[in-house]
Amino acid sequence: MTDSEGSAPSIPTDYEIAQSAEKRHVADVVEPFGLDREDLELFGEHTAKVKLEAIERLRAEGEADGKFVLVTGMTPTPLGEGKTVTTVGLGQAFNRIGKEALIAIREPSLGPVFGVKGGAAGGGYSQVLPMEDINLHFTGDLHALTSAHNLISTMLDNHIKQGNELDVAVNWVTWPRAIDMNDRVLRETVIGLGGDVTGVPREDGFVLTAASELMAVLCLADSVKDLKERVARIIVAYDEDGEPITADDIDATGAVTILLKDALKPNVVQTVEGTPAFVHGGPFANIAHGTNSLIADEVAAHLSEYLITEAGFGSDLGAEKFMNIVCRFGEMEPDAVTLVASVRALKYHGQEMWPPDLADLDAEDVESVRKGFENLDAHVGNLRKFGVPVVVALNRFPGDTDREVEAVLEHCEDDLGVRVAESTVFGDGGEGGIDLAEELVEAAEADSTFEPLYDLDAPVKEKIETVATEIYGADGVEYHGDAEDDIRRLADLGFDDVPICMSKTFHSLSDDASLKGAPEGWTLEVKEIYPSAGAGFLVVLTADVLTLPGLPADPAAADMDIDPDGTISGLF
Amino acid sequence: MTDSEGSAPSIPTDYEIAQSAEKRHVADVVEPFGLDREDLELFGEHTAKVKLEAIERLRAEGEADGKFVLVTGMTPTPLGEGKTVTTVGLGQAFNRIGKEALIAIREPSLGPVFGVKGGAAGGGYSQVLPMEDINLHFTGDLHALTSAHNLISTMLDNHIKQGNELDVAVNWVTWPRAIDMNDRVLRETVIGLGGDVTGVPREDGFVLTAASELMAVLCLADSVKDLKERVARIIVAYDEDGEPITADDIDATGAVTILLKDALKPNVVQTVEGTPAFVHGGPFANIAHGTNSLIADEVAAHLSEYLITEAGFGSDLGAEKFMNIVCRFGEMEPDAVTLVASVRALKYHGQEMWPPDLADLDAEDVESVRKGFENLDAHVGNLRKFGVPVVVALNRFPGDTDREVEAVLEHCEDDLGVRVAESTVFGDGGEGGIDLAEELVEAAEADSTFEPLYDLDAPVKEKIETVATEIYGADGVEYHGDAEDDIRRLADLGFDDVPICMSKTFHSLSDDASLKGAPEGWTLEVKEIYPSAGAGFLVVLTADVLTLPGLPADPAAADMDIDPDGTISGLF
Repeated sequence: MTDSEGSAPSIPTDYEIAQSAEKRHVADVVEPFGLDREDLELFGEHTAKVKLEAIERLRAEGEADGKFVLVTGMTPTPLGEGKTVTTVGLGQAFNRIGKEALIAIREPSLGPVFGVKGGAAGGGYSQVLPMEDINLHFTGDLHALTSAHNLISTMLDNHIKQGNELDVAVNWVTWPRAIDMNDRVLRETVIGLGGDVTGVPREDGFVLTAASELMAVLCLADSVKDLKERVARIIVAYDEDGEPITADDIDATGAVTILLKDALKPNVVQTVEGTPAFVHGGPFANIAHGTNSLIADEVAAHLSEYLITEAGFGSDLGAEKFMNIVCRFGEMEPDAVTLVASVRALKYHGQEMWPPDLADLDAEDVESVRKGFENLDAHVGNLRKFGVPVVVALNRFPGDTDREVEAVLEHCEDDLGVRVAESTVFGDGGEGGIDLAEELVEAAEADSTFEPLYDLDAPVKEKIETVATEIYGADGVEYHGDAEDDIRRLADLGFDDVPICMSKTFHSLSDDASLKGAPEGWTLEVKEIYPSAGAGFLVVLTADVLTLPGLPADPAAADMDIDPDGTISGLF
Repeated sequence: MTDSEGSAPSIPTDYEIAQSAEKRHVADVVEPFGLDREDLELFGEHTAKVKLEAIERLRAEGEADGKFVLVTGMTPTPLGEGKTVTTVGLGQAFNRIGKEALIAIREPSLGPVFGVKGGAAGGGYSQVLPMEDINLHFTGDLHALTSAHNLISTMLDNHIKQGNELDVAVNWVTWPRAIDMNDRVLRETVIGLGGDVTGVPREDGFVLTAASELMAVLCLADSVKDLKERVARIIVAYDEDGEPITADDIDATGAVTILLKDALKPNVVQTVEGTPAFVHGGPFANIAHGTNSLIADEVAAHLSEYLITEAGFGSDLGAEKFMNIVCRFGEMEPDAVTLVASVRALKYHGQEMWPPDLADLDAEDVESVRKGFENLDAHVGNLRKFGVPVVVALNRFPGDTDREVEAVLEHCEDDLGVRVAESTVFGDGGEGGIDLAEELVEAAEADSTFEPLYDLDAPVKEKIETVATEIYGADGVEYHGDAEDDIRRLADLGFDDVPICMSKTFHSLSDDASLKGAPEGWTLEVKEIYPSAGAGFLVVLTADVLTLPGLPADPAAADMDIDPDGTISGLF
């Protein structure tokens, strides 16, 4: 996402920086942190998976006592405001100020890579290498997930065809098929045509692999045993009496876990400055929790003084889920959180533009920046509700003027009383994040007063209302369609004492993408609630979620090329 | 395929043998053949890809002058008669008699692994390791192919949705979607439902990834440049005027080639006795040519005195295609061919059973063995037509009696005048293939008189009739449905001066699966002819081809399991 992270004419392209960076052998990169070559499964020289035996050894050696720094953001423009680049740059900056730090981020999936231009492994002098591999097949985790997902699908349809002993209701299959490709025509399909030989016809649809419940499962599992238990309890359909049918009921548990056994192992690579980076797992941040794997976080916290990790979208989505879901499951707590803001995003909120016309955001406009503060303030307020120290990271773009930047810094210090630092890690690498890193070190030294926002045994409606009013700023919640029925049914099934995973637009703090700033006087509309029993949470849908994007009129893939010598263009 | 290759109670299971085998580092395995560690991209310690730079270096160093030994078989029982196990065992045997040899075989795909019990990497003491990895994700080649295939699909449907500038005929899309899973309900589907936003509804279907034209393309390409040219010319649809629309027309060439750039590099592993084995590519042997990648063959012929490679199904399918298609494209010739026969298969033909009841084949039955000779004889005759020395390999199973075995040996020597040797490589490893290896060495020393069966510039019908009469034993050919139109259209398009790839049942030398032995007095029925323009041949369909199998009532996947410590069961 070159554009989103502040490239200037003077900075070489991401690809040029990646090509000219000297990569060390990945075993040498992680060795100072306590992993030996024997702890790694190598994929070439610059990528490895950490063996599960090594993880067991770390666990046996003692507590995971590294400090967690979470990177989140204000409500972004559609170009993104540079959360990943800040995460990568921060890791580099920590190591520059003498604090051991590791990075953990999500891994890209192929669908988006071929859709809208741009890889997803940071950018500029704060990117993760080898970015070509990371943006293509990498270590095959996404492919393993796609296969495992579709194995469940075919075993379910085969069960139906071979006599349907479990009495699966053909119109109540909840397990779609999955593909890691932006292929919109697969969203709604009819399958099983062609007569008796090919099985029972029914409506079906595909989701992007990153949206598969298996992705969430993989990112929350801490061992093969845990993975297997989570797979076993995934609900794939209901029978004619409304009783859930699980992956285990159709005998898929073992084979699915076998397909995922290698994907469970965290991937480790390096940044352009040689900081080790875990790049592992990538669930959606609406219908799932939106952060890299817990097992990568855990390993990093065993190995290093600090772990810098990133949550998807803003404080209302990824960060809320990190605090209320991930930290709960992982029995951990964030020691500090940094909120990425940008002058561009502040103007975007100040101008209340919808649909966005980003060209309008280039000119200096301090007034719009000031008007946009209400969005920033709401996000700072959200994070403070969890009792975690906050540092605002102003990701400075080359076109930002001093007057604009000053306005933000002053507002944070004087009006909000929140720590703030400029960051120029895109153009300057770790050096550009030193102020931010120092603020975060100080912030993380305070005793944590972290607490999730709601109790697990609170009624489902109360949990939803807590998030809606305290985080989104809604006046209340309305339940539409079958949502009330869903809540009753989930209570009957005993699936109500778990965290909730709110699926809401990331374009606004509200459930209306066109509302900028910090919308007031509105009611959250809940449409459906369903269990992700393998992941261990309830998904609360507030709007239609696009789980299989399409390609644009001019897809990135159309401009990609490869020379006879293997040199790639158009991928970044 | 444990059962197919003659396990006895005294032989440990494939999995036990695999577990107890001492595997060396793959770099040490190939080093004596002239590949350095820098020539390899490692996937862990026991699997590697050969870098394309290393292949260029070998090419620059001189001719690929290793001798080719092709392994084919008589018409098999549904359990298979042990071609892969013979190939692996032979490689081991050659090295035992002091002849440098490498093995090249196809790589398994996931679909069948989860369907019918059994992996596909040899068996007993003639198997390829690490068999767990090889039978699961291996180096990701199949996943790369699936992604690349479906990228073409989504770019095509996106083109149609975004205005259809090329005037694609929605009912004349010839590019299906692909999945590496036995998922029969995807054979016939309707996609693009859900209204204007999700594109244009049309009928579609999925094929197994191994049946994708991209698999054939990958297995015939000799470089990134060649791969890219082949991808570019793949026909994905026709326009309203009947003109072909290629992958290049929809701008997919670059991105597809990028997705396949690593899959192009041959994979190298080792057998239980430490013989290097290339396991690379796995096209169907009906709608495609059915042998491992040409690039693996070429590398092996550069590195070693002998290359032992295997063709799918019998002499009528894989071997015919190897001679008429693969050798032509690869500018190479087989120095000897071994025809795998078994007492079981001979009895199967002798009893003319259909549908097969294999339990009936256990008892001694020399009379049926003798009656089955006509199938063996036809295959020997087929191979002799190509001017290549033939050695019959009798893959001896533990239950075979001496009288049965003697009958076969005598028939070969006395009636056919063909070299023959018993092989017990399943139970004895390379030691069990020494006689066979010695016969093959002698046979391969003769000057080759190899020639393909037909000229490329012969009319399409003449090429089809040559294969039908000379190889299948048909009296002639009848053209049904649109086959005559297809031939005219292909001539108009200039696609007729290429090899033909005949798609016929492997259960019989004829086009009727129920006919055993060497059927006479029948006519081959040709139903459709279409171009695989990327691969560079015409596919001639003689019957409905199942390109997406389904799972059986009790799929192998249902019996697979994994322990918390990672130990797998049920995969083999």
